[in-house]
Amino acid sequence: MKTDNYRVKVSKNVKLKSWTTDERGGMKKKEGKVWAKALADDLAHWQERLYAENKQSLLIVLQARDAGGKDGTVKHVIGAFNPNGVHIANFKVPSEEELAHDFLWRIHTHTPKKGMVAVFNRSHYEDVLVTRVHGMIDDQTAGKRLDHIRHFESLLSDSGTRVLKFYLHVSKAEQEERLQDRLDNPDKLWKFNEGDLTERALWDEYTSVYQDALTTSTAQAPWYVIPADHKWFRNLLISQVILDTLKDMNPQYPETDLNPEKIEIK
Amino acid sequence: MKTDNYRVKVSKNVKLKSWTTDERGGMKKKEGKVWAKALADDLAHWQERLYAENKQSLLIVLQARDAGGKDGTVKHVIGAFNPNGVHIANFKVPSEEELAHDFLWRIHTHTPKKGMVAVFNRSHYEDVLVTRVHGMIDDQTAGKRLDHIRHFESLLSDSGTRVLKFYLHVSKAEQEERLQDRLDNPDKLWKFNEGDLTERALWDEYTSVYQDALTTSTAQAPWYVIPADHKWFRNLLISQVILDTLKDMNPQYPETDLNPEKIEIK
Repeated sequence: MKTDNYRVKVSKNVKLKSWTTDERGGMKKKEGKVWAKALADDLAHWQERLYAENKQSLLIVLQARDAGGKDGTVKHVIGAFNPNGVHIANFKVPSEEELAHDFLWRIHTHTPKKGMVAVFNRSHYEDVLVTRVHGMIDDQTAGKRLDHIRHFESLLSDSGTRVLKFYLHVSKAEQEERLQDRLDNPDKLWKFNEGDLTERALWDEYTSVYQDALTTSTAQAPWYVIPADHKWFRNLLISQVILDTLKDMNPQYPETDLNPEKIEIK
Repeated sequence: MKTDNYRVKVSKNVKLKSWTTDERGGMKKKEGKVWAKALADDLAHWQERLYAENKQSLLIVLQARDAGGKDGTVKHVIGAFNPNGVHIANFKVPSEEELAHDFLWRIHTHTPKKGMVAVFNRSHYEDVLVTRVHGMIDDQTAGKRLDHIRHFESLLSDSGTRVLKFYLHVSKAEQEERLQDRLDNPDKLWKFNEGDLTERALWDEYTSVYQDALTTSTAQAPWYVIPADHKWFRNLLISQVILDTLKDMNPQYPETDLNPEKIEIK
Protein backbone atom coordinates (compact mmCIF):
# COMPACT_ATOMS: atom_id res chain seq x y z
CA MET A 1 0.00 0.00 0.00
CA LYS A 2 1.30 3.43 -0.97
CA THR A 3 1.37 5.80 1.97
CA ASP A 4 2.89 8.84 0.33
CA ASN A 5 -0.47 10.55 -0.19
CA TYR A 6 -0.99 10.69 3.54
CA ARG A 7 2.29 12.41 4.26
CA VAL A 8 2.19 16.16 4.79
CA LYS A 9 4.49 17.80 2.28
CA VAL A 10 6.96 20.35 3.55
CA SER A 11 4.90 23.50 3.33
CA LYS A 12 3.81 26.56 5.20
CA ASN A 13 0.17 25.92 4.48
CA VAL A 14 -1.90 22.90 5.48
CA LYS A 15 -5.69 22.72 5.15
CA LEU A 16 -7.23 19.80 7.02
CA LYS A 17 -10.51 20.03 5.13
CA SER A 18 -8.72 18.76 2.05
CA TRP A 19 -7.85 15.53 3.91
CA THR A 20 -10.40 12.76 4.13
CA THR A 21 -11.40 11.11 7.42
CA ASP A 22 -13.36 8.11 6.16
CA GLU A 23 -11.11 6.44 3.62
CA ARG A 24 -10.87 2.65 3.44
CA GLY A 25 -8.22 2.35 0.75
CA GLY A 26 -10.71 0.55 -1.51
CA MET A 27 -10.69 -2.40 0.86
CA LYS A 28 -13.24 -4.29 2.89
CA LYS A 29 -12.73 -4.47 6.64
CA LYS A 30 -12.15 -8.21 6.50
CA GLU A 31 -9.40 -7.91 3.89
CA GLY A 32 -7.87 -5.06 5.84
CA LYS A 33 -7.68 -7.14 8.99
CA VAL A 34 -5.99 -10.05 7.23
CA TRP A 35 -3.48 -7.64 5.78
CA ALA A 36 -2.87 -6.01 9.15
CA LYS A 37 -2.05 -9.40 10.66
CA ALA A 38 0.64 -9.95 8.04
CA LEU A 39 2.05 -6.49 8.68
CA ALA A 40 2.14 -7.20 12.42
CA ASP A 41 4.50 -10.14 11.86
CA ASP A 42 6.74 -8.01 9.65
CA LEU A 43 6.73 -5.20 12.19
CA ALA A 44 7.84 -7.61 14.92
CA HIS A 45 10.66 -8.87 12.71
CA TRP A 46 11.99 -5.43 11.83
CA GLN A 47 11.70 -4.22 15.38
CA GLU A 48 13.84 -7.15 16.48
CA ARG A 49 16.47 -6.11 13.94
CA LEU A 50 16.38 -2.54 15.21
CA TYR A 51 16.81 -3.81 18.76
CA ALA A 52 19.58 -6.22 17.80
CA GLU A 53 21.47 -3.62 15.79
CA ASN A 54 21.36 -1.16 18.69
CA LYS A 55 22.40 1.86 16.62
CA GLN A 56 19.24 3.68 15.57
CA SER A 57 15.91 4.40 17.22
CA LEU A 58 12.38 5.31 16.26
CA LEU A 59 10.08 7.87 17.83
CA ILE A 60 6.37 7.62 17.03
CA VAL A 61 4.23 10.62 17.94
CA LEU A 62 0.47 10.14 18.19
CA GLN A 63 -1.79 13.17 18.22
CA ALA A 64 -5.55 13.30 17.83
CA ARG A 65 -8.65 14.91 19.14
CA ASP A 66 -10.38 13.15 22.03
CA ALA A 67 -11.59 9.68 21.03
CA GLY A 68 -9.51 10.00 17.89
CA GLY A 69 -7.94 6.58 18.45
CA LYS A 70 -4.55 7.10 20.10
CA ASP A 71 -5.07 4.39 22.71
CA GLY A 72 -6.47 1.99 20.15
CA THR A 73 -3.47 2.57 17.91
CA VAL A 74 -1.11 1.77 20.76
CA LYS A 75 -3.05 -1.38 21.58
CA HIS A 76 -3.40 -2.71 18.05
CA VAL A 77 -0.38 -1.38 16.16
CA ILE A 78 2.28 -1.05 18.84
CA GLY A 79 0.95 -4.26 20.39
CA ALA A 80 2.67 -6.10 17.53
CA PHE A 81 6.10 -5.22 18.91
CA ASN A 82 8.08 -7.06 21.54
CA PRO A 83 7.36 -4.98 24.67
CA ASN A 84 11.04 -5.27 25.62
CA GLY A 85 11.95 -2.84 22.88
CA VAL A 86 9.14 -0.33 23.35
CA HIS A 87 8.75 2.62 25.67
CA ILE A 88 5.35 4.32 25.85
CA ALA A 89 5.11 7.82 27.26
CA ASN A 90 1.68 9.23 28.06
CA PHE A 91 1.88 12.99 28.45
CA LYS A 92 -0.84 14.42 30.67
CA VAL A 93 -1.29 17.90 32.09
CA PRO A 94 2.22 18.95 33.18
CA SER A 95 3.12 18.75 36.86
CA GLU A 96 4.37 21.71 38.84
CA GLU A 97 7.94 20.49 38.46
CA GLU A 98 7.54 20.01 34.72
CA LEU A 99 6.11 23.51 34.33
CA ALA A 100 9.14 24.91 36.15
CA HIS A 101 11.23 23.86 33.12
CA ASP A 102 11.09 24.61 29.41
CA PHE A 103 8.31 22.74 27.61
CA LEU A 104 10.67 20.20 26.01
CA TRP A 105 12.33 19.19 29.28
CA ARG A 106 9.84 16.50 30.24
CA ILE A 107 9.70 15.32 26.63
CA HIS A 108 13.44 14.86 26.25
CA THR A 109 13.69 12.30 29.05
CA HIS A 110 11.40 9.98 27.10
CA THR A 111 13.09 9.98 23.69
CA PRO A 112 14.15 6.48 22.64
CA LYS A 113 17.64 5.20 23.23
CA LYS A 114 19.44 3.18 20.58
CA GLY A 115 17.59 0.06 19.54
CA MET A 116 14.31 1.24 21.02
CA VAL A 117 10.94 2.39 19.77
CA ALA A 118 9.34 5.15 21.82
CA VAL A 119 5.69 6.06 21.45
CA PHE A 120 4.39 9.42 22.57
CA ASN A 121 0.69 9.19 23.37
CA ARG A 122 0.18 12.95 23.15
CA SER A 123 3.43 14.86 23.02
CA HIS A 124 5.24 18.18 22.91
CA TYR A 125 2.65 19.21 20.33
CA GLU A 126 0.09 19.66 23.10
CA ASP A 127 2.10 22.74 24.02
CA VAL A 128 1.08 24.37 20.75
CA LEU A 129 -2.45 22.92 20.70
CA VAL A 130 -4.45 22.85 23.93
CA THR A 131 -2.47 25.75 25.40
CA ARG A 132 -3.10 27.82 22.32
CA VAL A 133 -6.78 27.07 21.97
CA HIS A 134 -7.31 28.10 25.57
CA GLY A 135 -5.32 31.30 25.20
CA MET A 136 -2.54 30.24 27.56
CA ILE A 137 0.02 31.27 24.95
CA ASP A 138 -0.24 33.83 22.16
CA ASP A 139 0.56 33.33 18.48
CA GLN A 140 4.06 34.69 18.83
CA THR A 141 4.92 32.23 21.59
CA ALA A 142 3.35 29.43 19.55
CA GLY A 143 5.50 30.39 16.58
CA LYS A 144 8.63 30.28 18.70
CA ARG A 145 7.63 26.93 20.17
CA LEU A 146 7.10 25.50 16.71
CA ASP A 147 10.63 26.60 15.84
CA HIS A 148 11.96 24.98 19.00
CA ILE A 149 10.12 21.80 18.07
CA ARG A 150 11.70 21.83 14.59
CA HIS A 151 15.15 22.22 16.10
CA PHE A 152 14.51 19.57 18.73
CA GLU A 153 13.33 17.03 16.18
CA SER A 154 16.31 17.82 14.00
CA LEU A 155 18.59 17.15 16.98
CA LEU A 156 16.94 13.76 17.32
CA SER A 157 17.18 12.87 13.66
CA ASP A 158 20.82 13.95 13.56
CA SER A 159 21.41 11.51 16.42
CA GLY A 160 20.01 8.40 14.79
CA THR A 161 16.36 8.75 15.79
CA ARG A 162 13.72 8.63 13.09
CA VAL A 163 10.64 10.62 13.98
CA LEU A 164 7.18 9.70 12.67
CA LYS A 165 4.24 11.89 13.57
CA PHE A 166 0.65 10.77 13.09
CA TYR A 167 -2.39 12.98 13.28
CA LEU A 168 -5.41 10.69 13.58
CA HIS A 169 -8.01 12.52 11.59
CA VAL A 170 -11.63 11.85 12.63
CA SER A 171 -14.77 13.67 11.60
CA LYS A 172 -16.90 15.54 14.11
CA ALA A 173 -19.70 13.03 13.53
CA GLU A 174 -17.39 10.09 14.23
CA GLN A 175 -16.19 11.71 17.45
CA GLU A 176 -19.80 12.15 18.53
CA GLU A 177 -20.48 8.50 17.91
CA ARG A 178 -17.46 7.39 19.92
CA LEU A 179 -18.21 9.67 22.85
CA GLN A 180 -21.83 8.50 22.83
CA ASP A 181 -20.60 4.91 22.80
CA ARG A 182 -18.63 5.59 25.98
CA LEU A 183 -21.78 6.93 27.61
CA ASP A 184 -23.87 3.98 26.50
CA ASN A 185 -21.47 1.25 27.55
CA PRO A 186 -20.88 0.73 31.30
CA ASP A 187 -17.44 -0.82 30.59
CA LYS A 188 -16.40 2.27 28.66
CA LEU A 189 -17.93 4.97 30.84
CA TRP A 190 -14.63 5.39 32.71
CA LYS A 191 -13.14 6.74 29.49
CA PHE A 192 -15.71 9.51 29.30
CA ASN A 193 -14.50 12.87 30.45
CA GLU A 194 -16.85 15.81 30.60
CA GLY A 195 -13.95 18.05 29.66
CA ASP A 196 -13.95 16.38 26.24
CA LEU A 197 -17.19 18.22 25.47
CA THR A 198 -15.53 21.56 26.21
CA GLU A 199 -12.79 20.70 23.74
CA ARG A 200 -15.31 19.45 21.19
CA ALA A 201 -17.02 22.83 21.28
CA LEU A 202 -13.68 24.29 20.17
CA TRP A 203 -13.54 22.04 17.09
CA ASP A 204 -12.65 24.76 14.58
CA GLU A 205 -10.08 26.35 16.89
CA TYR A 206 -8.35 22.98 17.18
CA THR A 207 -8.44 22.55 13.41
CA SER A 208 -6.64 25.84 13.03
CA VAL A 209 -3.85 25.12 15.54
CA TYR A 210 -3.41 21.57 14.25
CA GLN A 211 -2.87 23.02 10.79
CA ASP A 212 -0.02 25.12 12.15
CA ALA A 213 1.44 22.14 13.99
CA LEU A 214 1.39 20.11 10.78
CA THR A 215 3.72 22.64 9.13
CA THR A 216 6.55 21.04 11.13
CA SER A 217 6.48 18.15 8.66
CA THR A 218 9.97 17.56 7.27
CA ALA A 219 11.67 14.77 5.39
CA GLN A 220 13.32 13.63 8.64
CA ALA A 221 10.27 14.10 10.86
CA PRO A 222 7.20 13.85 8.65
CA TRP A 223 3.59 14.23 9.70
CA TYR A 224 1.02 11.81 8.37
CA VAL A 225 -2.67 12.70 8.35
CA ILE A 226 -4.35 9.36 8.90
CA PRO A 227 -7.99 8.90 7.91
CA ALA A 228 -9.21 7.53 11.24
CA ASP A 229 -12.98 7.16 11.08
CA HIS A 230 -12.42 3.46 10.37
CA LYS A 231 -10.27 2.01 13.11
CA TRP A 232 -9.12 -0.99 11.10
CA PHE A 233 -7.95 1.22 8.21
CA ARG A 234 -6.20 3.58 10.63
CA ASN A 235 -4.32 0.62 12.13
CA LEU A 236 -3.43 -0.77 8.73
CA LEU A 237 -2.14 2.51 7.36
CA ILE A 238 -0.08 3.38 10.43
CA SER A 239 1.39 -0.14 10.45
CA GLN A 240 2.38 0.26 6.82
CA VAL A 241 4.07 3.62 7.40
CA ILE A 242 6.02 2.28 10.38
CA LEU A 243 7.03 -0.85 8.47
CA ASP A 244 8.20 1.14 5.44
CA THR A 245 10.19 3.39 7.75
CA LEU A 246 11.84 0.50 9.57
CA LYS A 247 12.76 -1.11 6.25
CA ASP A 248 14.19 2.19 5.05
CA MET A 249 16.27 2.45 8.24
CA ASN A 250 17.41 -1.05 7.32
CA PRO A 251 18.80 -2.19 10.68
CA GLN A 252 21.25 -5.08 10.49
CA TYR A 253 22.03 -7.86 12.91
CA PRO A 254 25.35 -6.77 14.38
CA GLU A 255 28.65 -8.01 13.04
CA THR A 256 30.65 -10.07 15.49
CA ASP A 257 34.23 -11.26 15.76
CA LEU A 258 32.99 -14.50 17.25
CA ASN A 259 33.56 -17.67 15.34
CA PRO A 260 30.57 -19.73 16.46
CA GLU A 261 32.26 -22.95 15.39
CA LYS A 262 35.15 -22.38 17.74
CA ILE A 263 33.01 -21.90 20.81
CA GLU A 264 32.35 -24.91 22.96
CA ILE A 265 29.67 -24.86 25.61
CA LYS A 266 30.67 -27.00 28.54
CA MET B 1 -4.72 -24.77 36.42
CA LYS B 2 -3.56 -24.78 40.03
CA THR B 3 -0.44 -22.74 40.53
CA ASP B 4 0.01 -23.09 44.25
CA ASN B 5 2.59 -25.86 43.94
CA TYR B 6 4.93 -23.50 42.14
CA ARG B 7 4.81 -20.83 44.83
CA VAL B 8 7.73 -20.75 47.27
CA LYS B 9 6.35 -21.10 50.77
CA VAL B 10 7.54 -18.63 53.39
CA SER B 11 10.60 -20.39 54.69
CA LYS B 12 14.23 -19.97 55.54
CA ASN B 13 15.24 -22.94 53.46
CA VAL B 14 14.75 -23.45 49.73
CA LYS B 15 16.35 -26.26 47.73
CA LEU B 16 16.13 -25.80 43.98
CA LYS B 17 16.94 -29.41 43.23
CA SER B 18 13.52 -30.35 44.59
CA TRP B 19 11.89 -28.21 41.89
CA THR B 20 11.38 -29.60 38.40
CA THR B 21 12.51 -27.81 35.24
CA ASP B 22 10.78 -29.88 32.56
CA GLU B 23 7.17 -30.09 33.64
CA ARG B 24 4.36 -29.82 31.07
CA GLY B 25 1.38 -29.95 33.43
CA GLY B 26 0.22 -33.19 31.81
CA MET B 27 -0.53 -31.28 28.62
CA LYS B 28 0.53 -31.42 25.02
CA LYS B 29 2.14 -28.34 23.53
CA LYS B 30 -0.78 -27.82 21.16
CA GLU B 31 -3.34 -27.87 23.98
CA GLY B 32 -1.14 -25.57 26.01
CA LYS B 33 -0.99 -23.02 23.23
CA VAL B 34 -4.75 -22.97 22.78
CA TRP B 35 -5.14 -22.46 26.49
CA ALA B 36 -2.55 -19.69 26.54
CA LYS B 37 -4.49 -17.84 23.83
CA ALA B 38 -7.61 -17.87 26.00
CA LEU B 39 -5.61 -16.66 28.98
CA ALA B 40 -4.16 -13.82 26.89
CA ASP B 41 -7.65 -12.44 26.25
CA ASP B 42 -8.50 -12.68 29.95
CA LEU B 43 -5.23 -10.97 30.88
CA ALA B 44 -6.00 -8.09 28.53
CA HIS B 45 -9.45 -7.71 30.07
CA TRP B 46 -8.24 -7.66 33.67
CA GLN B 47 -5.39 -5.33 32.85
CA GLU B 48 -7.88 -2.90 31.37
CA ARG B 49 -9.84 -3.00 34.62
CA LEU B 50 -6.68 -2.35 36.62
CA TYR B 51 -5.90 0.61 34.37
CA ALA B 52 -9.46 1.96 34.50
CA GLU B 53 -9.70 1.62 38.29
CA ASN B 54 -6.44 3.51 38.73
CA LYS B 55 -5.99 2.54 42.38
CA GLN B 56 -3.71 -0.50 42.49
CA SER B 57 -0.67 -1.61 40.54
CA LEU B 58 1.24 -4.78 39.75
CA LEU B 59 4.98 -5.38 39.72
CA ILE B 60 6.26 -8.47 37.93
CA VAL B 61 9.87 -9.45 38.59
CA LEU B 62 11.57 -11.81 36.13
CA GLN B 63 14.78 -13.51 37.13
CA ALA B 64 16.57 -16.35 35.42
CA ARG B 65 19.94 -17.63 34.37
CA ASP B 66 21.13 -16.58 30.92
CA ALA B 67 18.84 -17.93 28.18
CA GLY B 68 16.34 -18.80 30.90
CA GLY B 69 13.52 -17.14 28.99
CA LYS B 70 13.04 -13.66 30.44
CA ASP B 71 12.81 -11.94 27.06
CA GLY B 72 10.54 -14.62 25.67
CA THR B 73 8.25 -14.23 28.66
CA VAL B 74 8.01 -10.49 28.09
CA LYS B 75 7.27 -11.05 24.41
CA HIS B 76 4.68 -13.77 24.79
CA VAL B 77 3.07 -13.16 28.19
CA ILE B 78 3.36 -9.42 28.67
CA GLY B 79 2.65 -9.00 24.95
CA ALA B 80 -0.98 -9.81 25.77
CA PHE B 81 -1.38 -6.53 27.62
CA ASN B 82 -2.24 -3.15 26.17
CA PRO B 83 1.18 -1.47 25.94
CA ASN B 84 -0.37 1.75 27.27
CA GLY B 85 -0.62 0.22 30.72
CA VAL B 86 2.76 -1.49 30.84
CA HIS B 87 6.20 -0.26 31.78
CA ILE B 88 9.18 -2.54 31.13
CA ALA B 89 12.43 -1.89 32.97
CA ASN B 90 15.56 -3.72 31.83
CA PHE B 91 18.22 -3.55 34.50
CA LYS B 92 21.74 -3.87 33.15
CA VAL B 93 25.10 -3.36 34.81
CA PRO B 94 24.60 -0.23 36.97
CA SER B 95 25.97 3.08 35.70
CA GLU B 96 28.41 5.21 37.66
CA GLU B 97 25.59 7.44 38.82
CA GLU B 98 23.48 4.48 39.90
CA LEU B 99 26.39 3.00 41.85
CA ALA B 100 26.77 6.30 43.69
CA HIS B 101 23.40 5.59 45.36
CA ASP B 102 22.01 2.73 47.43
CA PHE B 103 21.19 -0.36 45.37
CA LEU B 104 17.42 0.24 45.47
CA TRP B 105 17.61 3.82 44.20
CA ARG B 106 17.55 2.98 40.51
CA ILE B 107 14.91 0.34 41.11
CA HIS B 108 12.50 2.64 42.92
CA THR B 109 12.10 5.01 40.00
CA HIS B 110 10.65 2.16 37.94
CA THR B 111 7.99 0.83 40.31
CA PRO B 112 4.51 1.01 38.78
CA LYS B 113 2.19 3.88 39.43
CA LYS B 114 -1.50 3.30 40.07
CA GLY B 115 -3.25 1.47 37.27
CA MET B 116 -0.01 0.24 35.75
CA VAL B 117 1.84 -3.04 35.35
CA ALA B 118 5.61 -2.80 35.62
CA VAL B 119 7.86 -5.62 34.50
CA PHE B 120 11.41 -5.88 35.78
CA ASN B 121 13.55 -7.83 33.31
CA ARG B 122 16.25 -8.55 35.87
CA SER B 123 15.84 -6.55 39.04
CA HIS B 124 17.15 -5.59 42.47
CA TYR B 125 17.79 -9.29 42.97
CA GLU B 126 20.85 -9.06 40.74
CA ASP B 127 22.42 -7.21 43.66
CA VAL B 128 22.32 -10.39 45.73
CA LEU B 129 23.09 -12.73 42.82
CA VAL B 130 25.75 -11.75 40.30
CA THR B 131 27.50 -9.49 42.83
CA ARG B 132 27.60 -12.29 45.34
CA VAL B 133 28.78 -15.02 43.00
CA HIS B 134 31.65 -12.81 41.91
CA GLY B 135 32.62 -11.94 45.45
CA MET B 136 31.76 -8.24 45.13
CA ILE B 137 29.77 -8.48 48.35
CA ASP B 138 30.17 -10.83 51.32
CA ASP B 139 27.49 -12.95 52.99
CA GLN B 140 26.85 -10.38 55.68
CA THR B 141 26.18 -7.62 53.13
CA ALA B 142 24.01 -10.02 51.15
CA GLY B 143 21.99 -10.78 54.29
CA LYS B 144 21.45 -7.08 54.90
CA ARG B 145 20.46 -6.49 51.31
CA LEU B 146 17.92 -9.30 51.49
CA ASP B 147 16.44 -7.58 54.54
CA HIS B 148 16.33 -4.28 52.69
CA ILE B 149 14.59 -6.02 49.79
CA ARG B 150 11.98 -7.47 52.16
CA HIS B 151 11.28 -4.04 53.62
CA PHE B 152 11.21 -2.39 50.21
CA GLU B 153 8.72 -4.91 48.83
CA SER B 154 6.60 -4.52 51.94
CA LEU B 155 6.56 -0.74 51.36
CA LEU B 156 5.27 -1.41 47.86
CA SER B 157 2.60 -3.87 48.93
CA ASP B 158 1.44 -1.51 51.70
CA SER B 159 1.01 1.11 49.00
CA GLY B 160 -1.27 -0.84 46.69
CA THR B 161 1.34 -2.60 44.58
CA ARG B 162 1.17 -6.38 44.26
CA VAL B 163 4.54 -7.95 43.71
CA LEU B 164 4.96 -11.22 41.77
CA LYS B 165 8.42 -12.71 41.41
CA PHE B 166 9.22 -15.42 38.91
CA TYR B 167 12.34 -17.51 38.83
CA LEU B 168 12.47 -19.21 35.43
CA HIS B 169 13.97 -22.55 36.26
CA VAL B 170 15.89 -24.21 33.40
CA SER B 171 18.17 -27.20 33.50
CA LYS B 172 21.84 -26.96 32.66
CA ALA B 173 21.24 -29.14 29.60
CA GLU B 174 18.44 -26.86 28.35
CA GLN B 175 20.64 -23.81 28.78
CA GLU B 176 23.32 -25.50 26.72
CA GLU B 177 20.85 -26.20 23.98
CA ARG B 178 19.65 -22.60 23.89
CA LEU B 179 23.13 -21.12 23.88
CA GLN B 180 24.13 -23.55 21.12
CA ASP B 181 21.04 -22.51 19.19
CA ARG B 182 22.21 -18.88 19.33
CA LEU B 183 25.56 -19.94 17.94
CA ASP B 184 24.01 -22.00 15.17
CA ASN B 185 21.50 -19.41 13.99
CA PRO B 186 22.82 -16.24 12.30
CA ASP B 187 19.66 -14.33 13.30
CA LYS B 188 20.24 -15.22 16.95
CA LEU B 189 23.99 -14.83 17.14
CA TRP B 190 23.60 -11.24 18.39
CA LYS B 191 22.08 -12.64 21.56
CA PHE B 192 25.16 -14.71 22.29
CA ASN B 193 27.44 -13.23 24.88
CA GLU B 194 30.73 -14.93 25.70
CA GLY B 195 30.29 -13.76 29.28
CA ASP B 196 27.34 -16.13 29.57
CA LEU B 197 29.83 -19.02 29.51
CA THR B 198 31.65 -17.57 32.51
CA GLU B 199 28.38 -17.44 34.41
CA ARG B 200 27.44 -20.94 33.25
CA ALA B 201 30.65 -22.25 34.79
CA LEU B 202 29.38 -20.87 38.10
CA TRP B 203 26.17 -22.89 37.88
CA ASP B 204 26.24 -24.27 41.41
CA GLU B 205 27.25 -20.95 42.93
CA TYR B 206 24.23 -19.33 41.27
CA THR B 207 22.01 -22.12 42.54
CA SER B 208 23.13 -21.36 46.05
CA VAL B 209 22.57 -17.60 45.92
CA TYR B 210 19.24 -18.02 44.12
CA GLN B 211 18.12 -20.26 46.96
CA ASP B 212 18.83 -17.45 49.41
CA ALA B 213 17.04 -14.93 47.23
CA LEU B 214 13.98 -17.17 47.11
CA THR B 215 13.66 -16.93 50.90
CA THR B 216 12.20 -13.45 50.39
CA SER B 217 8.97 -15.12 49.30
CA THR B 218 6.08 -13.72 51.34
CA ALA B 219 2.30 -13.78 51.00
CA GLN B 220 2.42 -10.20 49.64
CA ALA B 221 5.46 -10.68 47.40
CA PRO B 222 5.66 -14.38 46.55
CA TRP B 223 8.31 -16.11 44.47
CA TYR B 224 7.25 -18.68 41.93
CA VAL B 225 9.70 -21.25 40.61
CA ILE B 226 8.55 -21.81 37.04
CA PRO B 227 9.56 -25.00 35.21
CA ALA B 228 10.99 -23.31 32.14
CA ASP B 229 12.55 -25.99 29.94
CA HIS B 230 9.37 -25.90 27.83
CA LYS B 231 8.75 -22.34 26.73
CA TRP B 232 5.07 -22.85 26.04
CA PHE B 233 4.47 -24.28 29.52
CA ARG B 234 6.46 -21.48 31.11
CA ASN B 235 4.29 -18.90 29.31
CA LEU B 236 1.10 -20.69 30.24
CA LEU B 237 1.96 -21.01 33.91
CA ILE B 238 3.11 -17.42 34.32
CA SER B 239 0.01 -16.19 32.50
CA GLN B 240 -2.14 -18.19 34.89
CA VAL B 241 -0.40 -16.81 37.99
CA ILE B 242 -0.73 -13.24 36.75
CA LEU B 243 -4.37 -13.75 35.83
CA ASP B 244 -5.21 -15.28 39.21
CA THR B 245 -3.47 -12.37 40.91
CA LEU B 246 -5.31 -9.74 38.89
CA LYS B 247 -8.61 -11.44 39.65
CA ASP B 248 -7.73 -11.54 43.32
CA MET B 249 -6.91 -7.80 43.22
CA ASN B 250 -10.37 -7.49 41.68
CA PRO B 251 -10.06 -4.03 40.13
CA GLN B 252 -13.39 -2.32 39.40
CA TYR B 253 -14.38 0.14 36.73
CA PRO B 254 -14.53 3.41 38.65
CA GLU B 255 -17.77 4.76 40.08
CA THR B 256 -18.90 8.03 38.56
CA ASP B 257 -21.38 10.74 39.49
CA LEU B 258 -22.19 11.20 35.81
CA ASN B 259 -25.64 10.36 34.64
CA PRO B 260 -24.95 9.26 31.06
CA GLU B 261 -28.58 9.83 30.08
CA LYS B 262 -28.41 13.48 30.98
CA ILE B 263 -25.36 14.23 28.86
CA GLU B 264 -25.98 15.52 25.38
CA ILE B 265 -23.17 15.61 22.84
CA LYS B 266 -23.60 18.59 20.54
